Amino acid sequence: VVAILVAGGRGRRMGEERPKQFLPLAGTSLLLRAADALRGSDEVDGIVVVAPEDELETVQSVVKPVSGILSVVAGGEIRRASVAAGLEAVPPSAGIIVVHDAARPLASPFLVSQVVAVARRTGAAIPGLPLTDTIKRVDQVTHQVQGTVPREELVAVQTPQAFRADWLRKAHAEAGQGAYAPDDAALVEALGLPVEVVPGEEDNLKVTRIGDLEMAELLLSRREGEE
Amino acid sequence: VVAILVAGGRGRRMGEERPKQFLPLAGTSLLLRAADALRGSDEVDGIVVVAPEDELETVQSVVKPVSGILSVVAGGEIRRASVAAGLEAVPPSAGIIVVHDAARPLASPFLVSQVVAVARRTGAAIPGLPLTDTIKRVDQVTHQVQGTVPREELVAVQTPQAFRADWLRKAHAEAGQGAYAPDDAALVEALGLPVEVVPGEEDNLKVTRIGDLEMAELLLSRREGEE
Repeated sequence: VVAILVAGGRGRRMGEERPKQFLPLAGTSLLLRAADALRGSDEVDGIVVVAPEDELETVQSVVKPVSGILSVVAGGEIRRASVAAGLEAVPPSAGIIVVHDAARPLASPFLVSQVVAVARRTGAAIPGLPLTDTIKRVDQVTHQVQGTVPREELVAVQTPQAFRADWLRKAHAEAGQGAYAPDDAALVEALGLPVEVVPGEEDNLKVTRIGDLEMAELLLSRREGEE
Repeated sequence: VVAILVAGGRGRRMGEERPKQFLPLAGTSLLLRAADALRGSDEVDGIVVVAPEDELETVQSVVKPVSGILSVVAGGEIRRASVAAGLEAVPPSAGIIVVHDAARPLASPFLVSQVVAVARRTGAAIPGLPLTDTIKRVDQVTHQVQGTVPREELVAVQTPQAFRADWLRKAHAEAGQGAYAPDDAALVEALGLPVEVVPGEEDNLKVTRIGDLEMAELLLSRREGEE
């Protein structure tokens, strides 16, 4: 089982000089925290880190002391290209590949083990949370509501996502460039292969905006208080 | 312009003895904070509060010192019945009715004014935020993904929601009991009437779980730091 830790983004939405995955969260970067979740799972044998091309050396020095890192490779312009670059560095012997975003520092090792275990059985497993908000479809030009989507049918999905290695490789190789693929599971879905949803974690937020970082700090301090 | 402040829920999801709308947020209950947002808008002339039947007297005494409260009425078993109870207490002279949830203590007076202004022009206005997560449709029995929903088409909607009074009354009177109506806008949509989405507010979270209350405290302290 090999994990691809995707830290290839430039994090422009945060308005920071450095990409968000290098921002500290209670003293430890998002990237290292996300790596720790993967390393904490007994299921993961090694990690390939995908870094932005211009941060490659920095990331290499940061992860050097960390055990379990197989290699650090340069990502592409978009997330999908970064995952594809990571895939090339995954040893051919890997049977299951986990994809995880460095922007999700609070995923638990348990969740990692969970998606791996289910993917072993079904081929593909991703974490999903029920939506608490009312969701509507909106016309992007007129801003008029087109309908209310039954939220019982919807989940907000997270990473880590785990796949049979041959499925994920095929999905990246064959899915059309035009396919709507905000995550790896969507590429696998595009091949008509089944993807199973396992319960996600409330704490496993994606750090996209500065407020998310504060929220992550809050969740982390609560978690440490419980321990 | 009259606002219905819906505090009729029993908040069972929070695992607290008291309904969540009475929980304190930095010393002031969610209910009073939500009322303050409505009162802070120049557009709102009066507020009808809908309380759980068994909390009616408590709520009456809590809001007694607050200006702008027209009445406190008992709600029903479900949210829709609570809004309907509030509607009966709205004076017939109201031209625009705002519906707001007590579980959203951090809506700004600006947002209230905004939905009222747009509803005056178009008939119905609700706040919506773009989704940051990848959203998928899932089979509730098999837990298998049925498809990835293009998130550009989706918004997570909030309250306050504002409507022409005749539209909202008609919507509540005529929409079928079976209609999927997680919010008031959905009832108006069911009549084929147009509903316009205005930009929602990141801070305007719905307090559903205990963690949401902590998040609300964080947002509030940040907001007060900025002021």
